Amino acid sequence: MYDLAVELYPLPRSITGEGTRETLRRIRERLPGLVIHEVPSGTEVFDWEVPPEWNIRDAYVMNDAGEKVVDFREHTLHVVGYSVPVNREVSLEELQEHLYSIPEKPDAIPYVTSFYSPRWGFCMTHRERERLDEGTYRVVIDSTLEPGSLSYGELILPGEEETEVLLSTYVCHPQMANDQLSGPVVLTELARWLQEQPRRYTYRIVFIPETIGSITYLSRNLETMRQNTVAGYVVSCVGDERRYTFMESRLGDTLADRVTRHVMEYHTPGFTHYDFLYAGSDERQYCSPGVDLPVVSVLRTRYRDYPEYHTSLDDLSLISPVGLGGAYELYRELLRALEWNRVYRTTVPCEPRLGPRGLYPTIHHPSHRRGIKDMIHLIQYSDGDHDLVAVAERIGMPVSWCHEMATVLVEHGVLEPVAGGSPATPSDPASTVRR
Amino acid sequence: MYDLAVELYPLPRSITGEGTRETLRRIRERLPGLVIHEVPSGTEVFDWEVPPEWNIRDAYVMNDAGEKVVDFREHTLHVVGYSVPVNREVSLEELQEHLYSIPEKPDAIPYVTSFYSPRWGFCMTHRERERLDEGTYRVVIDSTLEPGSLSYGELILPGEEETEVLLSTYVCHPQMANDQLSGPVVLTELARWLQEQPRRYTYRIVFIPETIGSITYLSRNLETMRQNTVAGYVVSCVGDERRYTFMESRLGDTLADRVTRHVMEYHTPGFTHYDFLYAGSDERQYCSPGVDLPVVSVLRTRYRDYPEYHTSLDDLSLISPVGLGGAYELYRELLRALEWNRVYRTTVPCEPRLGPRGLYPTIHHPSHRRGIKDMIHLIQYSDGDHDLVAVAERIGMPVSWCHEMATVLVEHGVLEPVAGGSPATPSDPASTVRR
Amino acid sequence: MYDLAVELYPLPRSITGEGTRETLRRIRERLPGLVIHEVPSGTEVFDWEVPPEWNIRDAYVMNDAGEKVVDFREHTLHVVGYSVPVNREVSLEELQEHLYSIPEKPDAIPYVTSFYSPRWGFCMTHRERERLDEGTYRVVIDSTLEPGSLSYGELILPGEEETEVLLSTYVCHPQMANDQLSGPVVLTELARWLQEQPRRYTYRIVFIPETIGSITYLSRNLETMRQNTVAGYVVSCVGDERRYTFMESRLGDTLADRVTRHVMEYHTPGFTHYDFLYAGSDERQYCSPGVDLPVVSVLRTRYRDYPEYHTSLDDLSLISPVGLGGAYELYRELLRALEWNRVYRTTVPCEPRLGPRGLYPTIHHPSHRRGIKDMIHLIQYSDGDHDLVAVAERIGMPVSWCHEMATVLVEHGVLEPVAGGSPATPSDPASTVRR
Repeated sequence: MYDLAVELYPLPRSITGEGTRETLRRIRERLPGLVIHEVPSGTEVFDWEVPPEWNIRDAYVMNDAGEKVVDFREHTLHVVGYSVPVNREVSLEELQEHLYSIPEKPDAIPYVTSFYSPRWGFCMTHRERERLDEGTYRVVIDSTLEPGSLSYGELILPGEEETEVLLSTYVCHPQMANDQLSGPVVLTELARWLQEQPRRYTYRIVFIPETIGSITYLSRNLETMRQNTVAGYVVSCVGDERRYTFMESRLGDTLADRVTRHVMEYHTPGFTHYDFLYAGSDERQYCSPGVDLPVVSVLRTRYRDYPEYHTSLDDLSLISPVGLGGAYELYRELLRALEWNRVYRTTVPCEPRLGPRGLYPTIHHPSHRRGIKDMIHLIQYSDGDHDLVAVAERIGMPVSWCHEMATVLVEHGVLEPVAGGSPATPSDPASTVRR
Repeated sequence: MYDLAVELYPLPRSITGEGTRETLRRIRERLPGLVIHEVPSGTEVFDWEVPPEWNIRDAYVMNDAGEKVVDFREHTLHVVGYSVPVNREVSLEELQEHLYSIPEKPDAIPYVTSFYSPRWGFCMTHRERERLDEGTYRVVIDSTLEPGSLSYGELILPGEEETEVLLSTYVCHPQMANDQLSGPVVLTELARWLQEQPRRYTYRIVFIPETIGSITYLSRNLETMRQNTVAGYVVSCVGDERRYTFMESRLGDTLADRVTRHVMEYHTPGFTHYDFLYAGSDERQYCSPGVDLPVVSVLRTRYRDYPEYHTSLDDLSLISPVGLGGAYELYRELLRALEWNRVYRTTVPCEPRLGPRGLYPTIHHPSHRRGIKDMIHLIQYSDGDHDLVAVAERIGMPVSWCHEMATVLVEHGVLEPVAGGSPATPSDPASTVRR
Repeated sequence: MYDLAVELYPLPRSITGEGTRETLRRIRERLPGLVIHEVPSGTEVFDWEVPPEWNIRDAYVMNDAGEKVVDFREHTLHVVGYSVPVNREVSLEELQEHLYSIPEKPDAIPYVTSFYSPRWGFCMTHRERERLDEGTYRVVIDSTLEPGSLSYGELILPGEEETEVLLSTYVCHPQMANDQLSGPVVLTELARWLQEQPRRYTYRIVFIPETIGSITYLSRNLETMRQNTVAGYVVSCVGDERRYTFMESRLGDTLADRVTRHVMEYHTPGFTHYDFLYAGSDERQYCSPGVDLPVVSVLRTRYRDYPEYHTSLDDLSLISPVGLGGAYELYRELLRALEWNRVYRTTVPCEPRLGPRGLYPTIHHPSHRRGIKDMIHLIQYSDGDHDLVAVAERIGMPVSWCHEMATVLVEHGVLEPVAGGSPATPSDPASTVRR
């Protein structure tokens, strides 16, 4: 995963353009089924419109002495995203109005965009900005902003059921590591793993530009997604080693919320828990009132929570194979838990007889009791009303253990899955057992 | 407001009689639309009966030396409310059986009544009572207790909707300031203000004798009030400067409860919060099981919570223009919040485009984000299910700000009010957003 | 109660056999209506089968010197329950494989059974086991394991309603006091008391072998019990003086749970509260998913919570008349509370007039208010929706006081019971009033 991140790092991504398209092509190399869709500029997508396509070949600021004091070829963050073309001489005073830097972070090039208002500008470290002398500067941005298309990648992995799990990440940020490349590379690896698994659910895996991309995608798939989506994740900022973060859906009560909370309590204890007021990526669209999908975010250090956020300091040193691998493992646990989460019921009234099934010690002695306690609890709460995650929470065991044990109990005729007893909406009794 | 209190102070109010009637007439001078109703003695009102009308002209206790040791003309509290007429000589021993004082508050004349059992009696300070010498006393109470009527004032201010807000205060206590005059004078001023406002709701404003008055009023208006009342307040003890108090409705879960809690948390933080077990005024009738209106109380220092309560020490020095004004302002905030409290929903799926509407900075830079965060939260929770107070609670902003912002967003076509989406009953989703 | 415990102590009880049958006969002497049922071995009961009947006449281990080193006649715990017959010589080494003792409790004979797997074995104190010399031992178990029947006792006390309360205890443990005899003797006494009471509910009182007994009983009575049972108790471990324990039903939200919690908070404050994960007796069957009766357990020191548990140390010194009597009194309070728990409503809108009914002081003076406050609260929450236990919880008074007062208020025409307004299921509003 880290190698793919290194490979994708310098591509000049934005919400449209060749940089993003090339990023999707490189991902498709690892994920042959991926379909790259193109949506023409000007297409109306709900309240929005697909913008013109932006491409950039070169950009720099050159001083009197012919030295490039800012050079896009050194770092793609140097140009304000969606800058209109420019090629002229300006005084330092005029130039300053088009420069962006962060005084408190003097060595960071900030990430600045102007998607929906025609502007041009350069971003640079504050330290270098302060070194600029009076004089005349040539500013060159060799960009085009023309009708084209918005590109996104989509991979549908069909499962036994039409019910879907959504996995979404964005591919529109330029040269940054945690808040850009970590999401696509972890999702690519997850998709490769899912391709090899037996799947109960259908998986809808999308690589899109943030915001305008999810809006565009939803405008084309809303009905199906509203009907079928049982849970979804926005995969983003999953590359560092600092922490794990769970961010709730809008109302915080979906199956995705319950499963994620449960799994992370066992798998990544001490994780940071945010409600939806902290949402900042595509979950804003997926959970918006008119869409209202059960989508949460699982991150390592969340966007805005680390000092390098949205600057050139968010570079390849911020992410690591260990960081990416930890997130990948957590996501596998989450998806497994979703797959496992069925509603079971006992096949007979009263407790089943465990001894003849080899599930119970045949001699009854005080010291033998503890080992089978949890199995009996699992049976006791398999009442056809509560799903496996609710039962796991109630009996204080991880859902992975519950799944293993339930599988054994089904084999022995003690439990049976309830037909159609799949996803629990918040008002279903399945969602919780009172403690 | 304070001047009206001074003017009404000496009138000999009781649950019936000229003192109360005159109080209502003086209020009508400020509130021309007020209708004074008379309900004849003997009228059956649910489990009760309107009592005979009590009027008193004079009353005193005179000692051997011809000195009036107790004199109704000095303070109307000196006579037990509803005392039957008497004019005879009694020994000190017999007199003592008809005297009421409070040893722990030796300078206070207590407020004592005997509405439903024929008695006569005098109230005095304990200090003066101890000075009474042995001897013969002439006791004179020149009162009448005869068929007449119970008087109450009613003002209906129609609004756009038939749905009503009830504002109720009592006018039956004699010469006391906080626990009598503060309620009517604040409610009079509120009514004058409401007359000049555009009104979504209809306002039912009543000035009644406590208990028998609200029972009488309900017996004549129960059906309409049960059908139409969305929220109600008992306005009482709103004149001092000591504290603010919120007292819940019987089940504590009505719209009135939610709005009041929310507004007071911002407007009068640190307020005292009581549940219904502390109810002591007309909310006992309005919230009684067979009536069950969504009525709460908002007070400054609550009856029974201040040492001067129900004695002559509750005089005009206990209330102040500042005290009355603070309560008046709080009530205006509460009524505004009720008027503002609509259910909104977004007009499009996904987030609306804010930039072209001038609601969003067109350049995207890390430091620009915070200012629009709350606006986005408001949009995110405007889902057609939750009312504005619920949304305000969820996003941690005052409903006043939410109302202002929602108005702007409606103007810009981002939000729309849900038709008929008005009051939320406790079981409606509108009443709360899980946090 | 203690005398009956002494009498029953030495009988060689098991899940079947003459010891249990004789125990039931002795109970029937105190409880003439008790019917002793016999269910033939081999009868299928849900997932189980009634086992062969086990009877034992004698058992011992004799050493080379002809001394009985283990003797069933000294303590019935010396033989593993359901041991198959044996009569032969074994080496010490072979003997050891059939011996059970507890090294950490060297003076305790453990209670060991092997109901569903043919075995023989002896239990002894660890101290005596260590004294066994090398040599040859004769082991004799003069037992039979033959077709017979499982015995249980049943007493139905009809009430005004068909709705039932279940009281269940087990009679299958050998010579132990708290975890055997305390349950049957307290339940016998409770049944004798209930026979003399007017009863609103029908009482189903059963004395059964644990687990297989309740399964057998349910297999014959499930439909009726599911239809009629409003609450139930497993009576067990109610003889010591150490503590009181409440163990919830499976979901913890039944009428039995609410009533028990309420009564114990007043009657046995400081009691230990367990959820259903700690369940270990017949409530495991009564609350199992396919049965799902509203059954809780009320114990003194719970099985497994005291060091003498399931050993010979659980002897008659562990229980006492005071211990048994305390549990008996608590159960009477619980059953009374169930009987009292009706839904009441007021007969008129607004507050009723209390004065003419002699329920209210006729003179109104600040000092007179407190005494009637609780009565007014009771009236205010008698709204036809909440049952008496919910009202009691809300107003902070014990249900016993609420019942007494409600009875007075019904006599005075202030309240009336709601017809059919009996047991509250958890989703009914009756189950709780928000505080």
